[in-house]
This record gives sequence, structure tokens and C-alpha cells, in this order.
Amino acid sequence: MRILGIDPGSFNAGFGLIEQQGSSLRLIEHGRICCSRGDALGARLAQLVRELDLLLARTSPDAAAIEATFHGRNTRSLIVLAQARGALLATLVERGLAPREYSPAEVKSAVTGNGRADKTQVQRMVRLLLALPNTPLATDASDALAIAICAAQRARFEAGLARTRR
Amino acid sequence: MRILGIDPGSFNAGFGLIEQQGSSLRLIEHGRICCSRGDALGARLAQLVRELDLLLARTSPDAAAIEATFHGRNTRSLIVLAQARGALLATLVERGLAPREYSPAEVKSAVTGNGRADKTQVQRMVRLLLALPNTPLATDASDALAIAICAAQRARFEAGLARTRR
Repeated sequence: MRILGIDPGSFNAGFGLIEQQGSSLRLIEHGRICCSRGDALGARLAQLVRELDLLLARTSPDAAAIEATFHGRNTRSLIVLAQARGALLATLVERGLAPREYSPAEVKSAVTGNGRADKTQVQRMVRLLLALPNTPLATDASDALAIAICAAQRARFEAGLARTRR
Repeated sequence: MRILGIDPGSFNAGFGLIEQQGSSLRLIEHGRICCSRGDALGARLAQLVRELDLLLARTSPDAAAIEATFHGRNTRSLIVLAQARGALLATLVERGLAPREYSPAEVKSAVTGNGRADKTQVQRMVRLLLALPNTPLATDASDALAIAICAAQRARFEAGLARTRR
């Protein structure tokens, strides 16, 4: 199963695509979809949506996950971020990928075992879990991979739970 | 020219479509696009986008306008509203209708001559300017019509300004 994690930002969104087979996780691709900083908000949102559409068409994920909460330096940046998230979320659902939503604490807890882990600890565990060579990962791509890993663990847990109930 | 005004909300969006010919304005249609309250946010946003798409296909507006700011009872409702606005804005731009954005004060000022007019005054002037019979208008439809009227007045003003510069 291919799981796409999305870490939305106001001007770009990190993405991380992993493949889950049983308990093993493998990195397929990570990166960032961007929009032009100079453009008006509407044009930026439309560009983010187009880039996400291209990514979905190219990579065909089976499931998606997105971070549930918002950290803005101020109300203005929070509102811009929320609008970007809304445009991305609507697109994912439209393409049949109703994404699971996880809070930052759930993601950190799933990846490191500690809901209050710092960014470095998350990055280190993402590398370890995906057996990545020790190359630097951009923060938003790393966060997106952590979200995808969280979704993979939950899916596995729920499948296990369903089996014990049979 | 057909101008579509949109007043975004978390669970629905008011819309007002008017036709402008010189200084005369005419109501074509007003109403509300809705989504199911029980659904998850992603499903609601996707439904809003689908309803907006149907509205655009059915009415073929030449231009669009949307309110620029946010009034939320609290941060949580503000964030939901912003996500709905982002999804609607991205859709309008994707369909070639890069909307003008106006603040509530600009809209009130354009419709009533007073940037601090109250809802009743705005509703009364919307009726007067569009020569509507004295039937009650839903607040969000009335606000959406006010946004469309504001856009129509600005377009006329800018066209006049361009002529004097020739």
C-alpha cells in the first residue's frame, strides 16, 4: 500500500510517499510542491492544487494523511495556512483519497514513541524507519514522511485489531 | 457582464449573481451552496467545491468577487472558515475566474456609502439597487449580492478612469 503524507504550508507543501508491506516501510519519494511567492493568494492556491494533482496522477497513492493542526506565527499567517490546507484537503477528497488527519503529537508519538519529541528526534527516526542514508532531509519533507509513517502504523494496528475481533 | 459574489462560510457559502449593463444592475440568481453538517471537514470541502463547480457550469459568470476577511467566533471556527474559503478560492481561480477580494468595509461602503453600515442597511440597499420586491433575503445571499455589487461598481469606476486617461 502506498501512503502519501502531506505537510501543508502557506507557500508550499511537503510531501512524503512511502510503501507499506506488512511491517516494512520503504521510501518511494519525498519533496515539496511549491507556488510562486509573488502571486496573489488565489493564484498560489490554484498552483498548489495543480501541483498536487500532477503528483497524484504520477504516483497513484492508495491512501493519504495530513497534519490536523496549525501553527502560525500570527493570525494572518494562520489564516493563509488554513486556506492552503483547505484547498489541498478538498483536492485529496475529490480524487478519492479522503485523508486521515493526525495531530502533531500523534505523529511524533507514532514515529518516536514520544508525543513531545523535537524536530531532530523525528528526523532521526524517519531516517531509521525508512532505512535512509544519512543525508539531510528538508524539514517539511521529513514532517510529511512522519505523517505517512503514522498513517501506516495506524492502518497496521487497525488491521490487527480487526483480525483479533474475527 | 455577469458578476458572481461569494460569501464563504464553514458549512455553506452564500452566492449572488448579478448582471451589469452600464450603470444598471439586475439580479440573476441568489442562494446558498451547502454541505452536510455531519461529514468530516474534507468531505464538506469537497462537496462545497463540487457545488461551486455545478453553479459555475450552470451560470457561466464573467467575473467573481469574494470577501477578503474573516470573522470567527473563535480560532477554531476561523480556521474551518479559512479552509472553506481556500477551497472555494482555488476552484474559482482554476476555472479562470480569479476573483477580486474586498474587505467588509469596502463592500459596505460601495453599497451604502458607509463603511460601518449595519446588516439591515446593507440588505435594504441591496434590494434597492437590484430593484427587488420586498421579500426577505437570507443574510449570506444578501452579503454575496453586496460583494457582487461592490465588484460591479469598482469595474465601472476603473473603466471610467481608463477612459479619462486615453
